[in-house]
Amino acid sequence: MPRRTAPVGELVGRAREGDSRAVARLISLVEDESPLLREVMAELAPYAGHAHIVGITGSPGVGKSTSTSALVSAYRETGKRVGVLAVDPSSPFSGGALLGDRVRMQDHATDRGVFIRSMASRGHLGGLSWSTPQALRVLDAAGFDVVLVETVGVGQSEVEIAGMADTTLVLLAPGMGDGIQAAKAGILEVGDIYVVNKADRDGVQSVTRDLRSMLALAERSEGAWSPPILKTVASRNEGVAEVVQAIEDRLEWMRGNGVLTERRRSRARDEIEAIATTALRARFAHLHGDARLDVLAAKVADGGTDPYSAADELIAAL
Amino acid sequence: MPRRTAPVGELVGRAREGDSRAVARLISLVEDESPLLREVMAELAPYAGHAHIVGITGSPGVGKSTSTSALVSAYRETGKRVGVLAVDPSSPFSGGALLGDRVRMQDHATDRGVFIRSMASRGHLGGLSWSTPQALRVLDAAGFDVVLVETVGVGQSEVEIAGMADTTLVLLAPGMGDGIQAAKAGILEVGDIYVVNKADRDGVQSVTRDLRSMLALAERSEGAWSPPILKTVASRNEGVAEVVQAIEDRLEWMRGNGVLTERRRSRARDEIEAIATTALRARFAHLHGDARLDVLAAKVADGGTDPYSAADELIAAL
Repeated sequence: MPRRTAPVGELVGRAREGDSRAVARLISLVEDESPLLREVMAELAPYAGHAHIVGITGSPGVGKSTSTSALVSAYRETGKRVGVLAVDPSSPFSGGALLGDRVRMQDHATDRGVFIRSMASRGHLGGLSWSTPQALRVLDAAGFDVVLVETVGVGQSEVEIAGMADTTLVLLAPGMGDGIQAAKAGILEVGDIYVVNKADRDGVQSVTRDLRSMLALAERSEGAWSPPILKTVASRNEGVAEVVQAIEDRLEWMRGNGVLTERRRSRARDEIEAIATTALRARFAHLHGDARLDVLAAKVADGGTDPYSAADELIAAL
Repeated sequence: MPRRTAPVGELVGRAREGDSRAVARLISLVEDESPLLREVMAELAPYAGHAHIVGITGSPGVGKSTSTSALVSAYRETGKRVGVLAVDPSSPFSGGALLGDRVRMQDHATDRGVFIRSMASRGHLGGLSWSTPQALRVLDAAGFDVVLVETVGVGQSEVEIAGMADTTLVLLAPGMGDGIQAAKAGILEVGDIYVVNKADRDGVQSVTRDLRSMLALAERSEGAWSPPILKTVASRNEGVAEVVQAIEDRLEWMRGNGVLTERRRSRARDEIEAIATTALRARFAHLHGDARLDVLAAKVADGGTDPYSAADELIAAL
């Protein structure tokens, strides 16, 4: 194990005191899949479960970065500490993202109550679903009141983010090819709050109307959360306070009916399973040499055995 | 274990002799996640690895069913036996699909060299990625020369299907909202053969041109397969023979350079891992009572432990 500059316990302490560099270092350990992660997570555990995790998703060009920045400012006016995690599900690199961070940070550069970090999500161990929950765990334990997780809605990423957030904001905008947005049926399953940004543009009525009628078709059980549709011009801070209010309303609602606790437990369950499965897969691969699974796979492909017997053999070898 | 009408060995024998009802029964065992599956897969194993698995995907409305039916007819003219598996990634039910099968079967109803089956994919154990490979294993071992797996390209389903197929056909059509199709960047990663169907319609040139320029941007390594772009009017059988030829060319290419073997081994690896992981998850859930994982999750959510320690505890309990 490499010699490290600061012990994990000290890093965690500094992160909780608002030291951005310590927070950044902890998230780097997540990104690097560091062997120190176990120790980090053990140190963080007692401080878990306080932040409101808010997912922000939408097609490219709807104004996610601008909206996130406006939400940060609005939250700072209420005195709350805000963490931002921008997850790029398409990039295998984090180098480019870091430049983006510096640009994005400008509005909040001198504010110790704000932390912004971009993260590439295609790690070795399963990307979005493996590293993002752990980075959120860092920000939660570091004492941020609100953590905004921003991701572009492509493929399954918005569904994955929604699974990791307490509350999910879906951003739309007029003139973005409504067909494309509507075709992404996924967004109708994940949104807790819908925000039509760039509401000063033509077509805002039609986007809002389409959205309303699509949501009306969705079946909701008795007592379920009814997602509001809000309009913003994030670049001019218009309507942003109302979005913050909706996020806080949602938090109150979740606190009142046990949904918050249930979501957090469900996420912890997913995390434990993901870590356990990853650990077992690593054992599958390394047991009796790296080639073990390959040998079994070749045997199955050639008809020498069936996948169930091969799976048995793999498990038995544990 | 329930008393069964025919022993598994007999069912497999009948399936290999071309008895459609026996094939259908075996696929039902897959769909039902029957405890007999282990026995089925053991009986099928020696006959594995002969069919060319061809995935067919595309947005709703591009003409997937018509194209599949036309491909079946074209393959039958060459004397080959064809199996068709239509996977619906959105439906949790298979009841509706069965009616669809009967309609689709009309063209091939009296042909013992053709088997068509729809399958809902949202089973208990992970849907598309768990049940589809096993159904393909049934059709492969039943002796079909070609197995067409048709699925609508929504979410990740086209990526999943491509992972299970030797060759993937991506269907497009003019006038379908090219923006939507282009936005689905996923299709550019998965297609081995692109087919622009409904090529008698306006806009075929623009779809073809857009596709060509998008494919030109994709990086391909030296010696990689270069995906052809073909045009069809499947409803009139125009261009279908050329598609069959392209599929056969691709098969030859894969046979010649070891890609076919590598893909089959890689799929077997995925299958073994999926079965082993599923088995371990079932043990996670049932070990020390069903509530074991829930208790650990609540402890993590409440800060009583961290997910790594919880995962250790889960694994140790195995």
